[in-house]
Amino acid sequence: MQTVPAPATWFSVRWQEGRLVILDQRRLPLEEVYVALESPGDVFQAIRDLMVRGAPAIGLVAAWGLVLAAEGSAAPDGPALVAELEAVAAELATARPTAVNLSWALTRMLARARAAGAGGPAAVRAALAAEAAAIQAEDEAAGRAMGEHLLALLPEGEAGILTHCNAGQLATSRYGTALAPIYLGVERGRRFRVYADETRPVLQGARLTAWELARLGVDTTLICDDMAASVLQQGKVDAVIVGADRIAANGDTANKIGTLGVALMARYFGVPFYVAAPLSTVDFALPDGRAIPIEERPPEEVTEGLGRRIAPPGVKVYNPAFDVTPHDLITAIVTERGVARPPLGAALARLAGRG
Amino acid sequence: MQTVPAPATWFSVRWQEGRLVILDQRRLPLEEVYVALESPGDVFQAIRDLMVRGAPAIGLVAAWGLVLAAEGSAAPDGPALVAELEAVAAELATARPTAVNLSWALTRMLARARAAGAGGPAAVRAALAAEAAAIQAEDEAAGRAMGEHLLALLPEGEAGILTHCNAGQLATSRYGTALAPIYLGVERGRRFRVYADETRPVLQGARLTAWELARLGVDTTLICDDMAASVLQQGKVDAVIVGADRIAANGDTANKIGTLGVALMARYFGVPFYVAAPLSTVDFALPDGRAIPIEERPPEEVTEGLGRRIAPPGVKVYNPAFDVTPHDLITAIVTERGVARPPLGAALARLAGRG
Repeated sequence: MQTVPAPATWFSVRWQEGRLVILDQRRLPLEEVYVALESPGDVFQAIRDLMVRGAPAIGLVAAWGLVLAAEGSAAPDGPALVAELEAVAAELATARPTAVNLSWALTRMLARARAAGAGGPAAVRAALAAEAAAIQAEDEAAGRAMGEHLLALLPEGEAGILTHCNAGQLATSRYGTALAPIYLGVERGRRFRVYADETRPVLQGARLTAWELARLGVDTTLICDDMAASVLQQGKVDAVIVGADRIAANGDTANKIGTLGVALMARYFGVPFYVAAPLSTVDFALPDGRAIPIEERPPEEVTEGLGRRIAPPGVKVYNPAFDVTPHDLITAIVTERGVARPPLGAALARLAGRG
Repeated sequence: MQTVPAPATWFSVRWQEGRLVILDQRRLPLEEVYVALESPGDVFQAIRDLMVRGAPAIGLVAAWGLVLAAEGSAAPDGPALVAELEAVAAELATARPTAVNLSWALTRMLARARAAGAGGPAAVRAALAAEAAAIQAEDEAAGRAMGEHLLALLPEGEAGILTHCNAGQLATSRYGTALAPIYLGVERGRRFRVYADETRPVLQGARLTAWELARLGVDTTLICDDMAASVLQQGKVDAVIVGADRIAANGDTANKIGTLGVALMARYFGVPFYVAAPLSTVDFALPDGRAIPIEERPPEEVTEGLGRRIAPPGVKVYNPAFDVTPHDLITAIVTERGVARPPLGAALARLAGRG
């Protein structure tokens, strides 16, 4: 893993000359540092340490991680290479447990590798590179489609939007999920007022959403998470839009910790609460949100993640990285294939061609 | 204003040998530094800069500020001294606009000074010192009484309590308001599991509540504000208890920013939401919460208050220090004279002898 020069136009994840280049999100907003990942180990570390985060981006990076594994392998034949890739995929899948996009992308890549295995290592390598590029292209197209669907749900004039965490370009290959209508709308001259929750403990809203919306020239106001209710109470928000890390078959949605609270606030103040996510985020194997694994992260993210110690030594800390918003608090789930409205379970199944 | 040696047993506010000694809350939890305030200017600065905060403590410190003003005055007679005190009080009242205890304490002190004015400066000085000591003693007694009323509302076994900001001894003269049942309960061998919201941006929960409950030996878990909904969803909390900075006649309650969101979460998950405040916090001149002035504080509290810059340069910030929780989200307001239950307006008036 090594630092590479910053490009003229920023990007989140890009395959360049045989290596995967990512913007190191831990260094934002004050430094724009790009890092080349050169092995599956680099990819594992980048995901686990939050150099790259956001459910679609994690899936994407993991897919390219298998390309790196194939490139670096000395396996003598196709089946041996596939077996190596399966071991690498099993390891990568543990880097973060909640986002389903990670295992979804790995499963898809392994299926492609197995199908190409008979052609030998070179065929597997070519197939994997094509598949990872396809996942990246599909992610970009999905973002664009979600953006279209969401734009149609927003008021014509200057729309007030509240978002939590970062579900923008930094979390995906290009348009983002929750922020996709803003990227598309700006291209068309539409105006927005965005309230960005800072999103403790890791501050993805303050560090990432505020950064990328500033790059886009969008009117953005940073608030602490505990100010969101007040902003909603004052009628400043037309819609809350968030991303998702895993959606159960009934529409229960795991997303960054704090999303549940924002959903409750939106419900009380009568503001629509939209979840934007590609259909790959829906885990149809889980009937409801109770079985979604919730990652707990180190207490130091809370007590020391901000540059100085903020709590007395020895204090206990509970630091879940995600929460589950019950489906009945969600106005609609916006996917690349259209808008799922309640009952969300049936609508999601229909959009996924399972209805 | 100068640093003085730390006492054997910690305190928040104490009159000692002609000066007012306070624990500088900005330095907690890592340093326990006491400062002697020696003039009304010192008191103004201590309130404005959050060296001392918490509605009852602000009122108390302002009361002692008038004692310092009287001690330091060369006014030739009672009326001249009273006029000087009125000017000092007008200035002190502007240090923070939301907490009504500040103006309540100043009004009470001025009334006492005017009543003593005919006796000359010495009589005014003696009267003020007695009145400030009375306010402090009453605050301690009120905390004890609120603690008794709240203890009666909590389950007998180990009670799970969630609190926001700091409404403990640090915010008062001794027992606190929201934390009073914990101080009293610990004296009686009762056990608690407390969840403390860190309370962005100034982190009163992480820095202050976690600190004073650790001193008390209470099982305390620090969470970020956006984790509270998840903790409530998991059934870990028997009651939410918070303090108040100003309560309108109908029970609408201004308290630290974030309180509104916690009230919404408690309502959704069926957990009682209690406000603990002395009756001096009720502003019967305001029919409802809409007219409560909400202090906005500098953006740097959000962007730089944690030891390093967390947001891109130039980002807009909204930083209200308080929010208003509508009376219909409040299960009960617990005062030193008893528990006000809905309809809160009538109950508060009755407790205050206005019913």
